[in-house]
Amino acid sequence: MTAGGGSVGPVETRFFTFAEPPTGLPLECGRSLGPVTLAYETYGSLNPERSNAVLVLHALSGDAHAAGLHDGEKTPGWWDDMIGPGKGLDTEKYFVICSNVLGGCKGSTGPASTNPRTGRPYGLELPVLTIKDMVDAQSRLVESLGIKKLLAVVGGSMGGMQVLQWMVSYPDRIRAAIPIATTLKHAPQQIAFDEVGRQAIMADSNWKEGEYYGGPLPSKGLAVARMVGHITYMSDASMAEKFGRRLKSEGEPGKFGTDFEVEGYLRYRGDSFVKRFDANSYLYITKAMDNFDLLAERRLAEVFRGLRARVLVIAFKSDWLYPAYQSKEIVKACKLAGVDASYCEIDSTYGHDAFLLEVEEETHLIQHFLRTATENGHGAREGERVSDEIRAQNHT
Amino acid sequence: MTAGGGSVGPVETRFFTFAEPPTGLPLECGRSLGPVTLAYETYGSLNPERSNAVLVLHALSGDAHAAGLHDGEKTPGWWDDMIGPGKGLDTEKYFVICSNVLGGCKGSTGPASTNPRTGRPYGLELPVLTIKDMVDAQSRLVESLGIKKLLAVVGGSMGGMQVLQWMVSYPDRIRAAIPIATTLKHAPQQIAFDEVGRQAIMADSNWKEGEYYGGPLPSKGLAVARMVGHITYMSDASMAEKFGRRLKSEGEPGKFGTDFEVEGYLRYRGDSFVKRFDANSYLYITKAMDNFDLLAERRLAEVFRGLRARVLVIAFKSDWLYPAYQSKEIVKACKLAGVDASYCEIDSTYGHDAFLLEVEEETHLIQHFLRTATENGHGAREGERVSDEIRAQNHT
Repeated sequence: MTAGGGSVGPVETRFFTFAEPPTGLPLECGRSLGPVTLAYETYGSLNPERSNAVLVLHALSGDAHAAGLHDGEKTPGWWDDMIGPGKGLDTEKYFVICSNVLGGCKGSTGPASTNPRTGRPYGLELPVLTIKDMVDAQSRLVESLGIKKLLAVVGGSMGGMQVLQWMVSYPDRIRAAIPIATTLKHAPQQIAFDEVGRQAIMADSNWKEGEYYGGPLPSKGLAVARMVGHITYMSDASMAEKFGRRLKSEGEPGKFGTDFEVEGYLRYRGDSFVKRFDANSYLYITKAMDNFDLLAERRLAEVFRGLRARVLVIAFKSDWLYPAYQSKEIVKACKLAGVDASYCEIDSTYGHDAFLLEVEEETHLIQHFLRTATENGHGAREGERVSDEIRAQNHT
Repeated sequence: MTAGGGSVGPVETRFFTFAEPPTGLPLECGRSLGPVTLAYETYGSLNPERSNAVLVLHALSGDAHAAGLHDGEKTPGWWDDMIGPGKGLDTEKYFVICSNVLGGCKGSTGPASTNPRTGRPYGLELPVLTIKDMVDAQSRLVESLGIKKLLAVVGGSMGGMQVLQWMVSYPDRIRAAIPIATTLKHAPQQIAFDEVGRQAIMADSNWKEGEYYGGPLPSKGLAVARMVGHITYMSDASMAEKFGRRLKSEGEPGKFGTDFEVEGYLRYRGDSFVKRFDANSYLYITKAMDNFDLLAERRLAEVFRGLRARVLVIAFKSDWLYPAYQSKEIVKACKLAGVDASYCEIDSTYGHDAFLLEVEEETHLIQHFLRTATENGHGAREGERVSDEIRAQNHT
C-alpha cells in the first residue's frame, strides 16, 4: 500500500488568528464569529511565483497535522503516506498546507474555545457552522500566506466536500481540484449514521447540553459514536478479512465482554478516540456534513458553472458510505458545466477507509494529475493512463 | 405489497411452562434453566393427523403475537400480512404456531423474569443463551401440542437462524423449511453493528450492570441501539425514497434538534421501541445471534447432512445486513448435502426490512412451496415458476 518517498521530518503546528470582533467572520447562518483561529501546518516551500501551493482538507476526525513528526511523537501526521519528498503530494515540488477545520478541537476555533463574551467555553453557544464557513475561513488563511491562487485543493470524505465547496465558492482561486470518496450532498443514510452518533453523545448523562467542560466528559457516548463511524468506514469484506469470527476473550465468555476480535477493535477505536476528540466538535462537524447540499439551490448543470479548474474525482468500489454513484454525480455535474473532469474508481476492498489506505494507486493518480495540471491546462485525461490495477473510467 | 386474504380475528397469547428445577432445560453453555415459560399463539386448526403445523420464528424484536388482534388493540401481529385465511400461511389449511424466544421480554423467560433462587429478576444472572437453546425450548412447546413432525418452519433474519438450527437439531421433525434473509453464521460486520447497540445500552448510566428493574430504565441507550438497527434494516435507496433530504424542523435549526425527516423517523422508532422492549433482552438476544455459527464445528457439506426436509431459501437484493451471498451459502450447504433446496432472490429496494414488506412475492413463493411440499416430496423446484417480478435462480 505504501508508495515510497521520504518524510517531511519535524513539523510544528502554527496558528492564524483573524476576524476580530465586532466584524468577525460572516457565517452562513447569518451570525458572525470572531476572533477565529485556525491551526495549520505547511510542508515544502512556496516558490517565488507563489504558484505551487496545495491545500489539503481533512475528514471528520482529522486535524492540521497531516504529515511529518511533532517533537517527541512517533506517529506521523494522518496523511504522511501521501505528503513528503517524492510522495503523491511531493514536498520537493509543492508547498502543502493543511488546517484544522473551523469547529474542530485541534487548535482551531470550536465549541471548546473560549467565548469572548462570557470568558467560558462556547459549548452550544457557538453558531451552527457549515462546510462553506469552513472553506471561507481557510480562504483567509490562504490569503494570509500571500497565495492568490492555489495549485490544487485535495481531500477525502468531508475533506472532499470542502474541495467541492472551494470549486463553488472560489472557482478563480484554484487551478485543480481532487475530491475523493465524497458527495455533492449528504444522503439520508449518511445523515442517519451521523444522527445515531449525535444521539449517542447526547444520551450520555455527562453531556449536560454541551456544558461539560471542566467536569467529566461524555466519553461513553462519544466512543459509541466513533464505533458506529468505524463500521461505516470499513466494508463487510474488509471486516471479514481483518477479523473473521476470531475470538478474543476478555471477561466471562458471552457476558457482553469482548468475545470477538471485531468487538475488541471497535472498543479500542472508541476508547482511543475520546482521548483526542471533543464531543461537541463531533456534533458541530457532523451537522455541517449533514447540512451539506450543493444541489439545494442549484440544478446539477449549474453547480460548477464557470469553473476553469481541472478536476480529478476518485472513488472506491467497496465504499458503501460514500458510494461510487455519488462520485459519478460529481463528474456529471462537471461535464454538464463543461469542466475538464476525470473519474477513477479504485478497486479496493477497504470501504471508505480506502482513501487513507490505497496510497499507491492514489499516488500514481495524483502525481500524474498534478504534473499535467501544472504543465498544461488542456492535457489528456489522467485517469485513463494509469496502471492496470486501476479501473479508470471516464464518465460522460 | 399486500396480497389479499383475511384476518385470523381476535387472538390471545398463551403460556407454556416446563423444565421445572432441579432438572430444568439443559443449555448449550452447560448450565440449565428452569422453570422455563414460552409465550405463544396459534392460528387455524390442527388437523386430525396433526400434520399441518407450521412454526413461525420471529426476529430480534418480534414476539409471539404474529397475527390477528389482541383485545382492545388496533395494530395486528407483526406478520399479519402473511398469516390468515387465504394468505401466504393460510390458516384455513395450516395450524400456525409462533412463540416468543427464550431470552425475550414478551412473556417468555428472559432476563426480566424472576430468578427462583433469589426472588428477583435474573438480570445478568441469566445464563448465556444461544439460538440452539431457543430452538430446544420451542421443540418442547411443539411436543406439548401433540405435534411429532412440523409441516414447516419459517422465519426471517434471526427467525431464519432458528429455521437453520431446526434443520440441524431436529432434521426428522420438519418436512419443509423456509429460511429468509439470514445466514449460516454471523459475520464480523453483523457482530459489529450488534456490539455498537450493546455498547450504547451499557453506556447508559441507568443500565447499572443490568440491575435496573424497579428503577429508571436505560432507555436512551436502548433507543440508540434501535436507531442503529433501523438504519441496517433499510437501504441507501429506500431511505432516499422515503425521506430524501426533506426537512422537519423542531427546535432551533441546526442545533442538534430534528432537522431532517430521517432524523425524526429514527428518533421516533428509538423512542417507541423502549416502551416495549427490555434492554437486557436486547443484550442476550443479539449475543445469541453473534454466537450463531453452524460452521464452527462442521464443514459446509456436513451442516445439513441427512436432512430430508425440502428447503426454500429467500433473499432480497438490497439487503446489505444479510446479503444475498449469505443465503446462497445456505443453498450451497443444502446442495452439498443432497438436500432439495430452491433459492429465490427478490428484487426489492427495501433492504433487510423487505422480509416483512415484500408480502406479495413472499406469498406467491411460500404458498406454492408449501402446496408442493405437502403434495409431493419430489416436485419441481418452486422458485422457478413464480411471477416475472421475481428473479428466481437455482443456485448449484
